[in-house]
Amino acid sequence: MKDDQTNPHRRGFLKAGAAAGLASGAGIARAALTRTPADDAQRQVEPFYGAHQAGIVTPQQSHTYMAAFDVKTESRDELVALLRAWTLASARMARGDTAGALDTPDDKPASDSADILGLGASALTITFGFGPTLFKTSDGKDRFGLAAKRPAALVDLPRFNGDQLIPEKTGGDIMIQACANDAQIAFHAVRQLARMGTSANVTSIRWGQAGFLSGPKGQTPRNLMGFKDGTNNPSTSQPPLMNQFVWADGADAPWMKGGTYTVVRRIRITLEHWDTMELGFQEQVFGRHKYSGAPIGKKKEFDAVDLDTADKDGNPAIAENSHVRLSNHMTNNGMQILRRSYSYNDGTNFYIERWPPWRQETEYDAGLIFVAHQSDPRTGFIPINTKLAKFDMMNQFTTHVGSAIFAVPPGAKEGSYIGAALFEA
Amino acid sequence: MKDDQTNPHRRGFLKAGAAAGLASGAGIARAALTRTPADDAQRQVEPFYGAHQAGIVTPQQSHTYMAAFDVKTESRDELVALLRAWTLASARMARGDTAGALDTPDDKPASDSADILGLGASALTITFGFGPTLFKTSDGKDRFGLAAKRPAALVDLPRFNGDQLIPEKTGGDIMIQACANDAQIAFHAVRQLARMGTSANVTSIRWGQAGFLSGPKGQTPRNLMGFKDGTNNPSTSQPPLMNQFVWADGADAPWMKGGTYTVVRRIRITLEHWDTMELGFQEQVFGRHKYSGAPIGKKKEFDAVDLDTADKDGNPAIAENSHVRLSNHMTNNGMQILRRSYSYNDGTNFYIERWPPWRQETEYDAGLIFVAHQSDPRTGFIPINTKLAKFDMMNQFTTHVGSAIFAVPPGAKEGSYIGAALFEA
Repeated sequence: MKDDQTNPHRRGFLKAGAAAGLASGAGIARAALTRTPADDAQRQVEPFYGAHQAGIVTPQQSHTYMAAFDVKTESRDELVALLRAWTLASARMARGDTAGALDTPDDKPASDSADILGLGASALTITFGFGPTLFKTSDGKDRFGLAAKRPAALVDLPRFNGDQLIPEKTGGDIMIQACANDAQIAFHAVRQLARMGTSANVTSIRWGQAGFLSGPKGQTPRNLMGFKDGTNNPSTSQPPLMNQFVWADGADAPWMKGGTYTVVRRIRITLEHWDTMELGFQEQVFGRHKYSGAPIGKKKEFDAVDLDTADKDGNPAIAENSHVRLSNHMTNNGMQILRRSYSYNDGTNFYIERWPPWRQETEYDAGLIFVAHQSDPRTGFIPINTKLAKFDMMNQFTTHVGSAIFAVPPGAKEGSYIGAALFEA
Repeated sequence: MKDDQTNPHRRGFLKAGAAAGLASGAGIARAALTRTPADDAQRQVEPFYGAHQAGIVTPQQSHTYMAAFDVKTESRDELVALLRAWTLASARMARGDTAGALDTPDDKPASDSADILGLGASALTITFGFGPTLFKTSDGKDRFGLAAKRPAALVDLPRFNGDQLIPEKTGGDIMIQACANDAQIAFHAVRQLARMGTSANVTSIRWGQAGFLSGPKGQTPRNLMGFKDGTNNPSTSQPPLMNQFVWADGADAPWMKGGTYTVVRRIRITLEHWDTMELGFQEQVFGRHKYSGAPIGKKKEFDAVDLDTADKDGNPAIAENSHVRLSNHMTNNGMQILRRSYSYNDGTNFYIERWPPWRQETEYDAGLIFVAHQSDPRTGFIPINTKLAKFDMMNQFTTHVGSAIFAVPPGAKEGSYIGAALFEA
């Protein structure tokens, strides 16, 4: 592992270059290289170090780039060295700096791709997680001596009804999610960390996914189906709710205390089909009114969901197979999960039907990067989605094509690194 | 063609619904449905009607969604009816409204997907263009009686050296490009127009592509390769330059006077590979210093490009095969094109090499949606790119996988529609 931060030659080069008075591109004054953000959304800085990792209860930024990595090395030391380097680089980027110092001599690869120069931190958060395969591979190998530390909650997700998972968009040993108020800042962060892992020969990228979220300030954002998404989320401003539903207590895996378990699903949505559905039907599917966000039969978004109300014909106002009823905590033993999803839009695919009527057409490859944080997926996502996958009327418009689960450890202390309690204790 | 704007029943429904006092989701008060933007970037409105179409010399917004459409109908009248409906819907959306009135009864599909409620216009521009195949198909059929009006400048692009074009990301009868300071606003605009074309059975989407651009305010933005992109663009604030290089004079096709010709190229960039290159080599490839943006040997971004300067060994300071030298107007008979490109990021692809060393890996599907506007591509993009495709050092990092050319007509007058002079004269 190289560590640019501690390379005295490079620091020396920076000083020399600056003193030489802009003699070369690599030696231009450092002041010109720092980011000079122009507005508040760009200037916003989220602390990287802390009791919890950032990006979980942080107010949701407008863009994300998520990636999963496969670990290629068999060396625990090399993996730990990369986690240390990733932690330092992430802390730099979170405060609005480049991943490494920009004092590269001309004959070396630069420590940052530099595409974010001039932009601010843009509320960048970088969140790390560890997948089940890091603890034990499918053939039972304890790759890094971590098998005994695998938390019981870090289960392998079951196959859900209707799953159409694509292997290259599923799983991963390590997750990195960057979120920021800028598409380029988010991608940049993951890209620098990916490059570090590749050049150290420790990791390779398994899948990467950009996402976005457009919401009026202070209001529940709408997903691409046009409905408000997240109305019934547990409030991140109530620590008791977060302790109950989001943060792991570390009972069987003390290194996870203050961490969370994160489920990611790439859910493709047939927007073309959805857009031709009657408004009233769309509302039945969700169990909410589209424009107001109110539960069916109510007037305001935050009016309580009343599952017992009947319509004038005596049928449930909120349909039996509606998304709201099936996912509501009242039908799920009171369990809640913290959804922090993004829309995605990867352009279009050309699609050929191989059976009558042999349709050929271009379709949107767009939908939802569903992200849910929870203290235990065995009582959270898994039972909720088992029910949804079977009965949700929405399923005729959605296909789960990617899936992953990660143990997201607590935050790092300055001077330490992400996952230290897993590897050091 | 339905036209929601002129349907008295629907207007009646809106009134009735509002008067009935929020009895149903469809009938909630109209005031709650208008967009209520929260900040300046969201509030910004670009006029849709005008001498030129918006989105060409408009200051570049942060996001785009571009799409190309195939025309399915053989009826010129149906095509014109769609262009009229598209014009009205576009003008509505550009001023921050929904594509159609939100007075849909429950048993009809809504006239807008509603995912942008609460967001502002966000400087939305919607730009339309006509591809060569609208005028004459490859088998010579004059589909809509337009063959005689095809401008000489609307050539079929030649095959360039190294082209690896994917048919389903290439060509198209009609282009629609939406640009806005918000990813969802841009996609939303194209999606509504696509739905209108599909439900009228007049068009189907051929390809769609999202893009983004992150730049410090008032500075040249950097592309994903980390270099400033657009430094040498002709200034859009100088009308004589725009008249010379961007706006068509309509000499052989009067309906195009005040329009432009737009070339789109989807250029995939091997960012993983680029990121491992020495800084000095990257600068040789571009012919500019990376951090400052100055031409090699100069200090400031806007210092003149001097192609005659030699380095201390007597070699050209700006390398013979550098991007700047090959694309500079001084080596291209003074010709300039107006580039208005966006980065794109469609996640990752899994890639298998079918020859030694049989590498398998996940790669970014990211790069540049190159967009260039010009008065005549025969003296603009085509000769410049013919040279670049053969000699540009950058080619080892870039692959052109999509391509299209469109005649972008002048702007519409209020009450008329985009392309009226083509169909009516």
